[in-house]
Amino acid sequence: MRTLKLTVAYDGTELAGWQRQASGRTVQGLLEDALTRIEGGPVSVVGSGRTDAGVHASGQVASVSVTNRLDPLTLRHALNANLPTDVRVLDVAEAPAGFDARRDAAQKTYEYRILNGVIASPFTRRFVWLVPQPLDIDAMARAAARLVGRHDFASFQSTGSSAATTCRTIRESQLVQDGPRELAERFSPIPMIAPADDASSVRLRYRIAGDGFLRHMVRTIVGTLVEIGLGRREADSVGAIMEARDRAEAGPTAPAHGLCLVRVEYSSVASGH
Amino acid sequence: MRTLKLTVAYDGTELAGWQRQASGRTVQGLLEDALTRIEGGPVSVVGSGRTDAGVHASGQVASVSVTNRLDPLTLRHALNANLPTDVRVLDVAEAPAGFDARRDAAQKTYEYRILNGVIASPFTRRFVWLVPQPLDIDAMARAAARLVGRHDFASFQSTGSSAATTCRTIRESQLVQDGPRELAERFSPIPMIAPADDASSVRLRYRIAGDGFLRHMVRTIVGTLVEIGLGRREADSVGAIMEARDRAEAGPTAPAHGLCLVRVEYSSVASGH
Repeated sequence: MRTLKLTVAYDGTELAGWQRQASGRTVQGLLEDALTRIEGGPVSVVGSGRTDAGVHASGQVASVSVTNRLDPLTLRHALNANLPTDVRVLDVAEAPAGFDARRDAAQKTYEYRILNGVIASPFTRRFVWLVPQPLDIDAMARAAARLVGRHDFASFQSTGSSAATTCRTIRESQLVQDGPRELAERFSPIPMIAPADDASSVRLRYRIAGDGFLRHMVRTIVGTLVEIGLGRREADSVGAIMEARDRAEAGPTAPAHGLCLVRVEYSSVASGH
Repeated sequence: MRTLKLTVAYDGTELAGWQRQASGRTVQGLLEDALTRIEGGPVSVVGSGRTDAGVHASGQVASVSVTNRLDPLTLRHALNANLPTDVRVLDVAEAPAGFDARRDAAQKTYEYRILNGVIASPFTRRFVWLVPQPLDIDAMARAAARLVGRHDFASFQSTGSSAATTCRTIRESQLVQDGPRELAERFSPIPMIAPADDASSVRLRYRIAGDGFLRHMVRTIVGTLVEIGLGRREADSVGAIMEARDRAEAGPTAPAHGLCLVRVEYSSVASGH
């Protein structure tokens, strides 16, 4: 048996999330089906974590044990040929025996995109949350920065979850405003929306990296940051929300489609690099 | 009656093109249906040109006569509320009586996106043509530049077309390589694909502006440029292809989904600006 580390990207719009289900298109299901066709026998794929329905990934990581001897590039090609275009295997690498993408994950990075404007471009609508009301971006950025460090995030976990501990260490929590439109236009890999007066819209990107995340944690943080941006909460209310350890104290869960898992990191020993 | 100029963007992936049809989602049909609901009576929308099924637009222009007295911003809002998210009205402006988006169009600009690499990102796959073989980009750029000027484009028109004249004036015809990945990453409005070795891929954008385009003309030019890039034709074969006035002399029609109508320009008299 060989153990492989797969790096996977997906557009979550038409996916029922990561985890295999009895019915519905899931990333795990599509990967296992593709690998099973290549292997000629059943295969189990372990993801670094279960992204929800509608959530995207540009750098999800999965581990899998296989018996075939295809070299990594050939295997990547065979996998992509057996997957729909909304799921792509970006990289296949040999990993040490026993590598487990979930257990061994040391840090994950998520990004959440907000368009503060009145019209979402048809080209990016699947990947951004459109918030039309004016936002106090400085207040949101200050609140975001307060999450860095080791904290109890029980208030930001969806009710009914049962994680062993609700403490997590956040290494980065940053709200940034994307570059000016002219530069975006120049470097964008997709068609940009035409001038019109929506040129006044602001593209925000919230980036958070930590050793782990509770269920709906990033989306609840974003929902809370937007309430701060709308002036419904103070920027420094974040400390009190954390202390309360009560989901009812935090803001609403932001929509899934603004969220993207961009990176999963492993210690060099675990992943063999 | 008021005459309005609409600027419209659409993701053509799930559209059967611009022109209204007995069945199938079309941009004209969706716009007319939305306006009819607002007007309470039938409305005819005229586009600057008919984009094919699968072709996108970030700056299509349409003209329409209406009787309602809604101000332009309110009308834009009402239109977008009555349209699916893959079609957005970016701008509504008053136009002089008799303004006709098709007849009065002075110049159109199209862009065609090519990804020269082995994996199309799930986030941009709807908007780029993936060409995995190595391309001679310099040869393609030289050939592209040769199209500038007034030429007979009969060889680049789909067979069976019946345009009155096949001569068109091209003011810009340029193949550019998009900026480095780091900058794209920084300014991209959507999640970028993770590193992996597909970092070697090159994003190309072909931009062409002219006083008019024959049916399938841009896609046939792009199909011919790619054949030049693949070394199947010489860069300077473009002149002979034009002289032949024979569709069989040009390359294949490139896929619709790489193409985007980015801009339509009018003389200040025609559009009232």
